[in-house]
Amino acid sequence: MSLVTDLCKAAAAVKYEVQKLDTQKKNEALLTAADRLVQRRADILAANEKDIEAGRAAGMSEALIDRLTLTDGRIEQIAEGLRQVAQLPDPVGEVMEEFVRPNGMKIRKIRVPMGVIGVIYESRPNVTADAFALCFKAGSAVILKGGSDAINSNIAITRVLRDSLEACGITPDAVQLVATTDRAATRELMTMRQYIDVLIPRGGSGLIRAVVEGSKIPVIETGTGNCHIYVDKDADLEMAMKILVNAKTQRIGVCNAAESLVVHRAVLDEFLPMLATTMEEYGVTLRADEDSRSMLPLAEAATEEDFGKEYLALMLSVKTVDSVEEAIEHINRYHTGHSDCIVTKDREAAEKFLREIDSACVYVNVSTRFTDGFEFGFGAEIGISTQKLQARGPMGLREITSYKYQITGDGQIRG
Amino acid sequence: MSLVTDLCKAAAAVKYEVQKLDTQKKNEALLTAADRLVQRRADILAANEKDIEAGRAAGMSEALIDRLTLTDGRIEQIAEGLRQVAQLPDPVGEVMEEFVRPNGMKIRKIRVPMGVIGVIYESRPNVTADAFALCFKAGSAVILKGGSDAINSNIAITRVLRDSLEACGITPDAVQLVATTDRAATRELMTMRQYIDVLIPRGGSGLIRAVVEGSKIPVIETGTGNCHIYVDKDADLEMAMKILVNAKTQRIGVCNAAESLVVHRAVLDEFLPMLATTMEEYGVTLRADEDSRSMLPLAEAATEEDFGKEYLALMLSVKTVDSVEEAIEHINRYHTGHSDCIVTKDREAAEKFLREIDSACVYVNVSTRFTDGFEFGFGAEIGISTQKLQARGPMGLREITSYKYQITGDGQIRG
Repeated sequence: MSLVTDLCKAAAAVKYEVQKLDTQKKNEALLTAADRLVQRRADILAANEKDIEAGRAAGMSEALIDRLTLTDGRIEQIAEGLRQVAQLPDPVGEVMEEFVRPNGMKIRKIRVPMGVIGVIYESRPNVTADAFALCFKAGSAVILKGGSDAINSNIAITRVLRDSLEACGITPDAVQLVATTDRAATRELMTMRQYIDVLIPRGGSGLIRAVVEGSKIPVIETGTGNCHIYVDKDADLEMAMKILVNAKTQRIGVCNAAESLVVHRAVLDEFLPMLATTMEEYGVTLRADEDSRSMLPLAEAATEEDFGKEYLALMLSVKTVDSVEEAIEHINRYHTGHSDCIVTKDREAAEKFLREIDSACVYVNVSTRFTDGFEFGFGAEIGISTQKLQARGPMGLREITSYKYQITGDGQIRG
Repeated sequence: MSLVTDLCKAAAAVKYEVQKLDTQKKNEALLTAADRLVQRRADILAANEKDIEAGRAAGMSEALIDRLTLTDGRIEQIAEGLRQVAQLPDPVGEVMEEFVRPNGMKIRKIRVPMGVIGVIYESRPNVTADAFALCFKAGSAVILKGGSDAINSNIAITRVLRDSLEACGITPDAVQLVATTDRAATRELMTMRQYIDVLIPRGGSGLIRAVVEGSKIPVIETGTGNCHIYVDKDADLEMAMKILVNAKTQRIGVCNAAESLVVHRAVLDEFLPMLATTMEEYGVTLRADEDSRSMLPLAEAATEEDFGKEYLALMLSVKTVDSVEEAIEHINRYHTGHSDCIVTKDREAAEKFLREIDSACVYVNVSTRFTDGFEFGFGAEIGISTQKLQARGPMGLREITSYKYQITGDGQIRG
């Protein structure tokens, strides 16, 4: 039997044990793991150092080295993340609905764990602890497959997590790491339908596409974000600029950052000069359509491709439209269904936009940067879903649970 | 471009138009379609006659011929189904949650259509109208791929549905049939991820497995049911027998029928003689484990395979256990996660069973035959899900919708 099959069998074998843990026990384990990660940071940092050395030897970019690097402070942050998950309400057992049928049988719909969750992710080693914490608190066993770059760090962190579970009298098999850099292991993991209930990819668009296309297990697609800001003819233009600057520049490498500006023709004359100045100030390169480009001296010509692009960089595409309808059509065509915003004082246009934009999060006069589990009040999130099944938008604990119906009666039979 | 690509593009092109239809308009279309199906029954019956002839020529069994056959009465039933869907509350636009964040932004979670739903099903032609009605009422465009056996019937029914939409001023492309018996078309349909949001297979286990394994589109697995009745040591044995008879024999070919009996050893002496007599009376063949077989003169020996089997026939496997824990373990091992029942007067055993059985529907003292959209009060159902993502158990209109967040504010940006 292969390594992956072994791990999957072990996770499946303990899933009901994990499912039965009460909230207090789960929180105790999370807090223990938080403490131990900090206590054993020397081991973790030593392992991390190996990954960094290997990365440098392989010519990894400084940006990636930075993502990979752990420090005392970052380990403290990881521990703090576990403590925060311990504080979140336990979704398991929540009664979602309760009703009585005419024949007297009582039906309760209650929230239950998924069972076994697989998480496939890239080089940030903090995901190892984050993903464990969320899946475990949601009552599921978890199988982790991190990036090869972080293999030593991930092994060290997982060892602490497993020891912490054991110290609390919980089976360590509740969390397992596919501790190999062999890509065949990832492909094999994606076929383990009989053991894994759901697979969540976290990372760049390449990883997500590979999992979505290769998996035999149901996948929750956490997504890339080609987010739009539409400045309507009735927009408060100062507000529009403030929102655009925030959405574009506050953090450029994230999925809820704006990548495209859509402008109503009626405000081109007033808005574009402001845009040119402000974007220059923030170092943002513009890729503009013909109608807007004449007023944006530094802009390059936008191609069809630009409108569909998640730049994750100081770049912004600009598109001119003649109506809110055209804006909606353009956005629904090019976006990734993540987050889009209209800036307007016109209530009707706002409502149309809210109704017709086909995204997880549709904003009126608010920066798209708020698409985030913490900002929504859900606490830590396992990702932001851009698909329509199971969960859409920020996914907290509830979104990684399932439900079942419990029916009680006194001998009801069907006539 | 292929036929399938054409259909998918056409459906995707009208999905927002369908999404925008108000409840009244959708109901008008459903009622119009109901009337026209009855009015044009001669065309439908003539088409159905062709399918029946082809079926007979191909040596189709009488049971399958019966499933395929339409009559005036069955067409009236199909029409009645459409009228019932018209009466169901419209899930689209329902506000699921609403809250205000500390920064003043308002977040509303509202129910929205999926977009385009694909349904792949087998020979019963009524599914053509049923699946259309549910998907359409839930605000989605629908692409139907029925069984080859019913191709002429399905074409005739779809023609009436499309004409009815057009008569109401609605785009007929809201419903499309993959009108070919070419199996390659089904395989191609399962790759149309960019156009179809979710795929729902309806049919036998072979069809469901083929779709689950072959699809690149997210699938809602509607499932096979290996349902169990567990007779606890504290069961009211008469009630247990009544429930067992109902669950096993009231309708044998359905997914919520019981396939396996699990009996606590303490009641073997009393329950098995009753079982032997009653099952003989109903013509049910028993496949029993060693411990129970000594008291069941007509029973055959059960193999490992029997316990995992959905017989869909007058067959029942019998397993002896020493405790409710053993019953739970046995059931969780062999069931399909559909519906399982405990018969007991012991509250603690009942609660343990409710909590620990990992099925869509877990019953105490109620026949498993109630796992059904109508019986749950959801109205018509598109299927019964045995998976954990998106929907579990009977799936009505709500279960084939998604949601989105609408966020409104007055210039909030992220700090």
